[in-house]
Amino acid sequence: MCCHVIYVIRTAGRGRTGARGPSGDTSTTVFSRPKQKLGEKEIEEHSFSGMATAASWKPLLLRALDSNAHLKHSTFFQLATIGSNGRPSNRTVVFRGFQEDTNEIQINTDRRSAKIEEIKHCHFGEICWYFTESWEQFRINGKIDIIDGANSDACKLQHREKAWFASSLKSRLQYLAPAPRLPDISNGSGEENQLDPSEGPVEAFCLLLFDPEQVDYLNLKSNERFIFTSRSSEQGFKVWMSEKVNP
Amino acid sequence: MCCHVIYVIRTAGRGRTGARGPSGDTSTTVFSRPKQKLGEKEIEEHSFSGMATAASWKPLLLRALDSNAHLKHSTFFQLATIGSNGRPSNRTVVFRGFQEDTNEIQINTDRRSAKIEEIKHCHFGEICWYFTESWEQFRINGKIDIIDGANSDACKLQHREKAWFASSLKSRLQYLAPAPRLPDISNGSGEENQLDPSEGPVEAFCLLLFDPEQVDYLNLKSNERFIFTSRSSEQGFKVWMSEKVNP
Repeated sequence: MCCHVIYVIRTAGRGRTGARGPSGDTSTTVFSRPKQKLGEKEIEEHSFSGMATAASWKPLLLRALDSNAHLKHSTFFQLATIGSNGRPSNRTVVFRGFQEDTNEIQINTDRRSAKIEEIKHCHFGEICWYFTESWEQFRINGKIDIIDGANSDACKLQHREKAWFASSLKSRLQYLAPAPRLPDISNGSGEENQLDPSEGPVEAFCLLLFDPEQVDYLNLKSNERFIFTSRSSEQGFKVWMSEKVNP
Repeated sequence: MCCHVIYVIRTAGRGRTGARGPSGDTSTTVFSRPKQKLGEKEIEEHSFSGMATAASWKPLLLRALDSNAHLKHSTFFQLATIGSNGRPSNRTVVFRGFQEDTNEIQINTDRRSAKIEEIKHCHFGEICWYFTESWEQFRINGKIDIIDGANSDACKLQHREKAWFASSLKSRLQYLAPAPRLPDISNGSGEENQLDPSEGPVEAFCLLLFDPEQVDYLNLKSNERFIFTSRSSEQGFKVWMSEKVNP
């Protein structure tokens, strides 16, 4: 994984001064800085009166999470995938934070749910995350990596274990319930499952890592919209570009 | 369009008594009734203590709309389609009611938005509608019909005109704005558009009719889930079946 992120800002002549962009486009400016956890300071840095200088989508998303934090549902978003029948598929999932200091979005899910087969079939997804208080929408398109107990990467298995213990005991118990979407044959007699809090992830527990490649940000209060797109540079850096577009 | 809807309830032996289902399955009961506007009375009728007797998804949806009506965002849902690049696409849209007394969900959109080309390419979609107060989720899979000004069906054009006049003047003005997602070249000088309130739909205004074929209903408070599926009968009726499944 690279340790730097290069941000490229396309601002139609209104950008910061900086190194010329790879394309030589004079309306494109580039700067690089060490990858870091984007916290409050970063958010403030980008709480732009001139939105056109926005460096990336992550500070915007962290700011939205912060300003909507009093609403439980502010960590819920809709994840679209492509169903095995070729039709779109869409459901609400819970944001479980970023994967350490990367841009990857963590989602916990049940390995027995339909979305696992769907993602194996087509690993692209689009998150639609609407913040009901600040009227901001993030449409995040990217690739999804499935990390279940059979994963051969020890590092990824560690991430899965960490995600398991970061969940509440109540959340963990869901993975002991009967397989989702199969006929309910319980006749209302819900079994009481028991789980040792120190026990590691059960087989059904699965971590999804969503790696954003494009973000479409819309602010309905300021009536502004930005498209953030990424590409991998020859040096292995992930290069982000942003453009202000009509809402 | 048919004037009756047949509801088929699969209730694992706990259904109402009724005619035997087409499959001869004893766990399936069928009843038919004239298609009607489902209002408060209907909702009450289906405010089941025994959820297994739910006849269809529409009363559940109307009840959710009613109990979340004090929240402006309760009429917002996420519509997933398949992008021209074969990837999922997902955005927030506004519920504009049902098409008269049918099950078809109305959505207004801009003909110049990317979703129009996407729907022309693949006319399937999935709505994910999460109600933040009642903790209910409806995943509605179906087909989307595009009704723009060039539509050859006079009846559909009337629906489009009706949807236009049902929108606020502020909403209508959005369709006079520059094309969405094109580079913003306004330099912050937003033009003030004028619109005669009696003027009919402008070219960019488009009505989408979403015809549900399957509904996956999840209630996170009662921890219950129902799958409603439909098929067209030989007589041209739309037949709905429901099954209680594990959440």
